[in-house]
Amino acid sequence: MAVLPPEVNPSDFEAALQAFENVVGARWMFTSDEDIDLYRDAYSPFRGEPDLEKQASAAVAPDSVEQVQEIMRIANRYRIPIYPIATGKNLGYGGAAPVHSGSVVLDLKRMNRILHLDEKNHTVLVEPGVSFYELYEYIQERGLRIWMDQPDPGWGSLIGNALEHGVGHNFSVLRDRFDTHCGMEVVLPDGDLLRTGMGALPGAETWQDYKYGFGPYVDGIFAQSNYGVVTKMGFWLIPEPEAYRSGMIHVSGYEDLIPLVDTLNLVTNSGLSNGLNGLSSPLLNARDPGGELGRLLDTPGGPDPAAMERYARGHNIPYWTCSLDFYGPEEVIAAQWEYAREKFAAEVPGSWSEAPMPVYRFPLSDAQRHTLDAEGMAEKVSFGIPSLMRFSNIARSAWNPDPGIGHVFYSPVIPKRGEEIFKAQRVFNDAFIRMGVPRRGFASLPTLWYTRAAILLYGLPVRADAETNRKTRETFRELVDIGHEHGWAEYRAPAAFMDEVMGAYDFNDSVLLRFAERLKDAVDPNGILAAGRGGIWPRHLRDA
Amino acid sequence: MAVLPPEVNPSDFEAALQAFENVVGARWMFTSDEDIDLYRDAYSPFRGEPDLEKQASAAVAPDSVEQVQEIMRIANRYRIPIYPIATGKNLGYGGAAPVHSGSVVLDLKRMNRILHLDEKNHTVLVEPGVSFYELYEYIQERGLRIWMDQPDPGWGSLIGNALEHGVGHNFSVLRDRFDTHCGMEVVLPDGDLLRTGMGALPGAETWQDYKYGFGPYVDGIFAQSNYGVVTKMGFWLIPEPEAYRSGMIHVSGYEDLIPLVDTLNLVTNSGLSNGLNGLSSPLLNARDPGGELGRLLDTPGGPDPAAMERYARGHNIPYWTCSLDFYGPEEVIAAQWEYAREKFAAEVPGSWSEAPMPVYRFPLSDAQRHTLDAEGMAEKVSFGIPSLMRFSNIARSAWNPDPGIGHVFYSPVIPKRGEEIFKAQRVFNDAFIRMGVPRRGFASLPTLWYTRAAILLYGLPVRADAETNRKTRETFRELVDIGHEHGWAEYRAPAAFMDEVMGAYDFNDSVLLRFAERLKDAVDPNGILAAGRGGIWPRHLRDA
Repeated sequence: MAVLPPEVNPSDFEAALQAFENVVGARWMFTSDEDIDLYRDAYSPFRGEPDLEKQASAAVAPDSVEQVQEIMRIANRYRIPIYPIATGKNLGYGGAAPVHSGSVVLDLKRMNRILHLDEKNHTVLVEPGVSFYELYEYIQERGLRIWMDQPDPGWGSLIGNALEHGVGHNFSVLRDRFDTHCGMEVVLPDGDLLRTGMGALPGAETWQDYKYGFGPYVDGIFAQSNYGVVTKMGFWLIPEPEAYRSGMIHVSGYEDLIPLVDTLNLVTNSGLSNGLNGLSSPLLNARDPGGELGRLLDTPGGPDPAAMERYARGHNIPYWTCSLDFYGPEEVIAAQWEYAREKFAAEVPGSWSEAPMPVYRFPLSDAQRHTLDAEGMAEKVSFGIPSLMRFSNIARSAWNPDPGIGHVFYSPVIPKRGEEIFKAQRVFNDAFIRMGVPRRGFASLPTLWYTRAAILLYGLPVRADAETNRKTRETFRELVDIGHEHGWAEYRAPAAFMDEVMGAYDFNDSVLLRFAERLKDAVDPNGILAAGRGGIWPRHLRDA
Repeated sequence: MAVLPPEVNPSDFEAALQAFENVVGARWMFTSDEDIDLYRDAYSPFRGEPDLEKQASAAVAPDSVEQVQEIMRIANRYRIPIYPIATGKNLGYGGAAPVHSGSVVLDLKRMNRILHLDEKNHTVLVEPGVSFYELYEYIQERGLRIWMDQPDPGWGSLIGNALEHGVGHNFSVLRDRFDTHCGMEVVLPDGDLLRTGMGALPGAETWQDYKYGFGPYVDGIFAQSNYGVVTKMGFWLIPEPEAYRSGMIHVSGYEDLIPLVDTLNLVTNSGLSNGLNGLSSPLLNARDPGGELGRLLDTPGGPDPAAMERYARGHNIPYWTCSLDFYGPEEVIAAQWEYAREKFAAEVPGSWSEAPMPVYRFPLSDAQRHTLDAEGMAEKVSFGIPSLMRFSNIARSAWNPDPGIGHVFYSPVIPKRGEEIFKAQRVFNDAFIRMGVPRRGFASLPTLWYTRAAILLYGLPVRADAETNRKTRETFRELVDIGHEHGWAEYRAPAAFMDEVMGAYDFNDSVLLRFAERLKDAVDPNGILAAGRGGIWPRHLRDA
């Protein structure tokens, strides 16, 4: 049963839907329960509690910027809450469902045109419905030797990913998706059409080449917020690298993580390794049910580092491993890996290196592609190929052994320092034990997508039963509080917890939110766009 | 004689000055003609026309964020226009003078503390008064093996440079100064204190590590605008590279510039060369008064490309040269240069390469530093040392043979394509001839600071005589119009021409400016901060 927006009277709502339909045609106006059901968040932590679940009242799918403008004008006339989505695949963070129940979803999936690809300066201009898969196909079909930075899952929208401050897995210079965008087109809440950067200059051919244009650089305020509907965005691409190689640095000692991360910072911050560098623990991820290691791992409260270290040294299993990716000409990446090995050997006593993967040259041969497809040995995204592999791994990882329906992500930013990683592991592990959340201690290491910071990623289970989900919600809120206490907060939030996450950013009486609300009132005086997104509510819903 | 703000009554003005003085002490309140004279723009294109010159009414120099907040509160009370400056060295773009005559300059030079430098993650947090020289000295004194990306001139403020979308000359990943900042503290026009990114999270240790925090990323709106006084900003630094080498690719043919730039894009966009890559023309810059080349160069309307090309081939002088800089481990940069040479040889038939400079290892020896100091052979900024050398070269370059007092910069963004560079040269050369601006044709090649775009930089002369300056102003305005016609507009504007430059960004009835004004009214309802900066005026001055 569709949830109507509580602040709108039913006759206005009906009139608005009719007006929307007049814009897009009956085929692209969705009001049946069956259709609206498709916009539910498959991973909603309110599954099983229909009164709480955030749901759309209807959905409308325009095909052009002009239709989006017209829809926004109608929404203003009737004060209809509108919630734009790109491909709606923001799973773990809210999917396609609105933050404010009863919103009409503005589904931009039909706007999936690749408008311009500059082969010589390696840029592209796309609409919100363009997924990584689609851009990849477009490039492959034309035989272009151009790569984009690949995320996983690859079914997401480039624009959606960027606006959520999402990331990819390849090149350090392109991995911060929002930072790699160049130029936006935005339908403002009143239907006016803004172009940013050089797009504000009629006839400019540099819209995807130079970010700032002149005057205030406004692009940032349209990310993780509700100030406009982004209808076009440019992105920087990269020439296909000649080759790819990877290597690993291993250490046996628990505290070796500290110099390992410091040296990784040296190597990453100087650009020596231009791929995604990762941290892992072969020891903590080893499977040894009933054996000595298994018993150590199952120690209540988490394994004892000293005992684990003894085991690591005795069995030659690395306690910590740092992996490094290199893209470029074969001789260059060989010299980079050689230099990195020497650097780690000098800075991290007792470390050793290994490079079991072959060096791959691009384009891959058909046989190599076939092997990747068939065996899934190496991760496809490392080869510039969009994939869902990592994403599906997350769903069934050690800390979420029975993924059930899905998960919501708690993902705080912590300093990229060994000491802080230990501290965060300890704090969160203690919290999980205290709260009785099933998980294997100390197994979580941060992701290093953002070159200068580390991000922890905890997936909390969502199931069919309301009990589990209530527990997940409690856990999530407590994690936000614990993080806040330690100076850790999230880079991104599930729709269900945006207020809590924004609430942690409370310096000076939450001045950031107060400032954001001031902008909101100026830009969207009727408060119709994406209420609650980024924790920002329009005035009429603010105190509710 | 001090110029009072016309919209303020004299008794309010006096009361405000007294209140400012109560905050900072008499020593840091400047009201005498002699003192105020120091805030005049040394390169003002209104020199000699006192009625037109934009001048301060007074200046106040706080020492702390709290004093800045208090000053803003007082300014609101009395509606005093305030114009913040960092080190006031924005020469060629307005210097220390306000855009709106009669503003009180808020001089932040005393706030020059380096608040935190993270040696292990290579970040720094500074106040607005910190210059590149000061940060360099700070690093040297401590013997740290850390570099910043160096601009020239080095006397400028890191924060001021970033907020003007300024650039440096070293590393491609750090050169876009604004993009390399991480975290801001801003005193809002009403005196409230905002911290952005992870700074909005009390106790966060990641303020300089992760840019976005949560919700809208507002940092960009404080650049080239007037929405707040930035009192702190974090920046990313880089580990000292092991070595530096440079090389050059030469071509003889006029049209060889086209594949030369395309190949440069390949090399730059793939990150193979991580330093500043440049274009120059040894042929056009050759000195041959009275000789054959001299006669060709002096051809009215600019030299004939075909004749020049014949001369170039006959005398083995490159028509165009592309220089490439590489920083990193010695073996890595050797492999990069080798690969780049091969790439250019393959893609640009007839090109040849040269690497006359030695490979330098860091830290430089005392003898090498001495040589740099004494001979100025190589440019210091390439060695990570702040300098004024390039800046002073600009002042006495070919297109400004008699620099007189100074210059104002016209600096449009054009596509990084050979064809567009030719077109822009032709268009602007014709314009200079038509307007009778003394200059040698076709000598201007774009700078390539911003990796994906090219920026032309024309300095127009400012002299003691009002006649020359009037001519410069007319020329400037005409250049803006010509640029607009061709889809070229500026990345940065002198204070005297901000309205004109913003005026060129007129897509959809100047929606960018209309949007900026909407933000302005929301953020600074009394319209007291930096009126006119970025072409944005407060409501009460908007129509004047």
